[in-house]
Amino acid sequence: MSERKEFRDLAPPERAHEAIAELDLTPDTETVPLAEARGRVLAERLDAALDVPGFDRASVDGYAVRAEDTFGADEADPERVELVGEVHAGEVPNVTVGPGQCAEISTGAVVPEGADAVVMVERTDREGETVLIRTSLAPGDRIMFAGADVAAGERALGPGTEITAREIGLLSALGVDEVPVRGRPIVGIVSTGDELVRPGDPLESEAGQIYDVNSYTVAAGVAEAGGEPELYPHAGDNREQMERVLRKAADECDLVLSSGSTSASAVDVIYRVIEEQGELLLHGVAVKPGKPMLVGTLDDSAYVGLPGYPVSALTIFRTFVAPAIRRAAGKPEPAGATITGQMAVEERYTEGRLRYMPAGLVTDGDGKTLVYPVDKGSGATTSLVEADGVVAVDPDTEYLGAGEAVEVQLFSPDVRPPTVFGVGEDDPALARLLDRVDRPRYLGQGSRPGLRRLRNGVADIAVTSAPKPDRLEVDQLAMWRREWGLVVPEGNPDGVTGLASLVDDELAFVNRTSDSGLRTSLSEAMAALADERGVDRHDLVEAVDGFDRAVRAHESPARRVRAGKADIGLGLEATAEQLGLGFVPVGTETVRLLAAPDRADKPGVQQLEEAVHSGGDVFISLAGYKTGDKA
Amino acid sequence: MSERKEFRDLAPPERAHEAIAELDLTPDTETVPLAEARGRVLAERLDAALDVPGFDRASVDGYAVRAEDTFGADEADPERVELVGEVHAGEVPNVTVGPGQCAEISTGAVVPEGADAVVMVERTDREGETVLIRTSLAPGDRIMFAGADVAAGERALGPGTEITAREIGLLSALGVDEVPVRGRPIVGIVSTGDELVRPGDPLESEAGQIYDVNSYTVAAGVAEAGGEPELYPHAGDNREQMERVLRKAADECDLVLSSGSTSASAVDVIYRVIEEQGELLLHGVAVKPGKPMLVGTLDDSAYVGLPGYPVSALTIFRTFVAPAIRRAAGKPEPAGATITGQMAVEERYTEGRLRYMPAGLVTDGDGKTLVYPVDKGSGATTSLVEADGVVAVDPDTEYLGAGEAVEVQLFSPDVRPPTVFGVGEDDPALARLLDRVDRPRYLGQGSRPGLRRLRNGVADIAVTSAPKPDRLEVDQLAMWRREWGLVVPEGNPDGVTGLASLVDDELAFVNRTSDSGLRTSLSEAMAALADERGVDRHDLVEAVDGFDRAVRAHESPARRVRAGKADIGLGLEATAEQLGLGFVPVGTETVRLLAAPDRADKPGVQQLEEAVHSGGDVFISLAGYKTGDKA
Repeated sequence: MSERKEFRDLAPPERAHEAIAELDLTPDTETVPLAEARGRVLAERLDAALDVPGFDRASVDGYAVRAEDTFGADEADPERVELVGEVHAGEVPNVTVGPGQCAEISTGAVVPEGADAVVMVERTDREGETVLIRTSLAPGDRIMFAGADVAAGERALGPGTEITAREIGLLSALGVDEVPVRGRPIVGIVSTGDELVRPGDPLESEAGQIYDVNSYTVAAGVAEAGGEPELYPHAGDNREQMERVLRKAADECDLVLSSGSTSASAVDVIYRVIEEQGELLLHGVAVKPGKPMLVGTLDDSAYVGLPGYPVSALTIFRTFVAPAIRRAAGKPEPAGATITGQMAVEERYTEGRLRYMPAGLVTDGDGKTLVYPVDKGSGATTSLVEADGVVAVDPDTEYLGAGEAVEVQLFSPDVRPPTVFGVGEDDPALARLLDRVDRPRYLGQGSRPGLRRLRNGVADIAVTSAPKPDRLEVDQLAMWRREWGLVVPEGNPDGVTGLASLVDDELAFVNRTSDSGLRTSLSEAMAALADERGVDRHDLVEAVDGFDRAVRAHESPARRVRAGKADIGLGLEATAEQLGLGFVPVGTETVRLLAAPDRADKPGVQQLEEAVHSGGDVFISLAGYKTGDKA
Repeated sequence: MSERKEFRDLAPPERAHEAIAELDLTPDTETVPLAEARGRVLAERLDAALDVPGFDRASVDGYAVRAEDTFGADEADPERVELVGEVHAGEVPNVTVGPGQCAEISTGAVVPEGADAVVMVERTDREGETVLIRTSLAPGDRIMFAGADVAAGERALGPGTEITAREIGLLSALGVDEVPVRGRPIVGIVSTGDELVRPGDPLESEAGQIYDVNSYTVAAGVAEAGGEPELYPHAGDNREQMERVLRKAADECDLVLSSGSTSASAVDVIYRVIEEQGELLLHGVAVKPGKPMLVGTLDDSAYVGLPGYPVSALTIFRTFVAPAIRRAAGKPEPAGATITGQMAVEERYTEGRLRYMPAGLVTDGDGKTLVYPVDKGSGATTSLVEADGVVAVDPDTEYLGAGEAVEVQLFSPDVRPPTVFGVGEDDPALARLLDRVDRPRYLGQGSRPGLRRLRNGVADIAVTSAPKPDRLEVDQLAMWRREWGLVVPEGNPDGVTGLASLVDDELAFVNRTSDSGLRTSLSEAMAALADERGVDRHDLVEAVDGFDRAVRAHESPARRVRAGKADIGLGLEATAEQLGLGFVPVGTETVRLLAAPDRADKPGVQQLEEAVHSGGDVFISLAGYKTGDKA
């Protein structure tokens, strides 16, 4: 085993914030065309270089007159003035308005010399070349004077102003077509694991390769924070190459990020390079996750090393690095980056250090936001999409009670609670239903977790193939049946006939995990077979090669069979058909789509109901049950 | 006057929403690289095409063993196994673990054949080629099985999912490098006014030209809503050219927007083209602003005509058009697009139709959001940056009381209340102070409006050159003096000596508006001169050519002088110096920076105080007064 650096003296989180704040990420100012200025931040104060409008401008369609000619006029006793010309918007007036005269004028046109007021056409009458004015005007009426909107020399926009549509409007009015903005810090992201492969490239699973998750995730986070991400390709396991990539990134970027490789050699290389070519400011932080965080400099660039687990990397990035990028870019934290909710369930802590708890959001029937813990530190990628953000839990907190208010730091400001949150069976008919719902969240964790989370008020819906729950008040939105049995290679080469083949023949089997309804159905069928044969159920199960070889997802056993890694897999007829495999039926299961009654009005639940009732899909006719049936 | 279409039958606002909803803006699906997928919306369901991980993966650094070899092991009585090899991440294991054997393994590496558990290195000891295992393991311990994170065939992401950093993480894990996303509707923006000039091009103010504000503002709004804006240049006042541009835009875009030109000819052309080449679905909506809205089709494209005033155009765009673009792009309304606040002041309405009231936001001392009305329909561009959004006021509402809760639809989700809101004198020293504050809002409307808005609790600070207010409890943050007088051309060609020249010589003068403190100072000086001469003050003022020729901003009179449009301007010595003009002193004014005591802790007020106290700037030494002095 290679020697590893130990994290003996973990820095407090504040020290990590300070260390990152000490790094200089500030990019140079740049100039962008107005059309590309949206979302950028003004680098300097802009004063108006001209008056807006640049001339005395008619605010209405009507007639330009001398106000004193109208004094005393009213509806009963209009004043008569002579029409001597007209002025349209966008043209130089070729008329002067003398005493007793007027000129027709369009909105936006230049008020001609001599005139000092404009009367709306609605308050006038026309008799040939004479205009009757039925109201008294004061000088300046219906005129926007030059500079009345913006005056030349006025402070128009201050440094640090974030440029949105409205600022673009003001800049346009001032004729500004090139805008001096804060540069975006360039953030290099170096991929460090020997086992990491770029998405799109072929993957050798047998060699332990996995796709590189953190590079693209962190790049998206960098862009969101106002930085410009630059991905550096994995340089191979050669130390020299690795050092070359790191130093190239440091040379080209304001900040270099790497996300903790699991390979010891990469960590060692980064260590050595930072120590030789820069300065290590901080090594290890007393937070969970994120302990193995590195902060330092590398040549003239700043450097931060993120942890390797995707949720941990995104959490540490969001908490420690994104604020620094935003600061450098001059962008404030976006509105809606944090939201407040109530714990849906209780949660206990034992760490004694600051913990960032990945959390999912769900709204209850009253629209209140509930927060539930998601990731248990498994390192799973799916935790990324199961979690909406993180809750910072103080080192002293041992317990968060259900209903307690917590603040969730969202992974992105665009993250919102799903319209419906469901947990339960993984099922092909259900997958099609979910396609008709906007922003659902569904975790195919099996019948038992589904019912458990429906019961504790976290999930809105559960999908179960287990028997109807007795002590749970639920709405049954739909019910359908599915054929299950043994999935075998195409043509059933081993002549599998049913459960007996599983027990009696020497065939490799792949089961589902015990949370799955199908596993329960199989166990019941095995028990029935044991009774039939008059043998002990346990002995029967022992005779199966692979009864405990369990996989989580419903297609997985069939896929193992297709890959030639097993002879028989537990699965659905629909799956066997879809994957072009053989199928030996064993039984029929009832799948129920259940909803918590107090969540019936949530938009996603409603959309699910509509999807169930729309007759278009054949599979739904299998449901055959009215919404609202109490299970 | 050209004939104009009348808006006799105004459609209810709901009908406008419906008419726009009837338009088909939906673009084709497209495929983008993963690195460009952020912010896009998934066009179809993505199922996992592979298992993640693709192999049984060690979750820790340690030793891969057969669990049964460790049964019964504990700290006191470790089990001894033989080390037969090692497996690193990213490599094919070249070892098989037999009974009584183990292999060294790195986190992320493939669990070698024969092994069914991994023990953490921390629970082991090493004696040469023998490893002592100090804990009992169950099969599967510290292994993430193939497909345990994501299983091949699982529903990974649904159609309509907005792609943020976390979704990019999951897509990466699945090896997806090209993502099918909803297309962005292409929105053509046609500039229609003869008087409009593109920012950056030269402007002929004397011909009534103004810069085109709405094209860029609306383009920014389109991009923000998820559309792709395409600007079509102004085609000149020729009807045929105009029609050609409109039809070109219709041919190339999903939606064409024009913003109401003030020129009658443009409106007529659009009318005729829509009626001949498309269909007019709606003309005129019962909302203020926005009455002259058009909805229809043009060839195969949708068409919406927006009003001409910038605030009106942005309001109607935000309320009616942006939702349709978002729908077409598949994007939900962003979080934080609306916020709730309390009316800071009362406001009365007489329209009897739905009104979108432009509103500014300010936080009070307790962090509560206050909402105040901004634009009075002046058509000013500055209203764009003075307003943060609009409040929809029901036709039946005649009155909104101070403190009443209202919902503000923000112009952009990034819009937030300023850190400090000030109203008062326009002053060069103040402008430099403001540069040191993050996101201030300051309206240079003069001393009187400043004090009025400080008094009614809208503004946090006021800057006044008027005498100290008597009945107003305020904190004086700073005070400085400024020389004011008569700004004349360089070298003072007319030999102006003081106020006497203004009265006695035939010189054209430009004054400031009556809200300005400088105007008050001038009036007082004129009164003194009248007393001195024993004449009536009014007669003295009458003798000045241009005493009522008043401009709003502090540099404007001087700029008129510089432009040769006046002989004398009221102004500051600092301004004359800056613009290279002559200056005849008349008096010295005291400028006070006053803050509402209950807003003293607001970040922007604090930053202002810091800016005042930082010794770096000379002008501040003029302040010379301690913060907190009660005025």
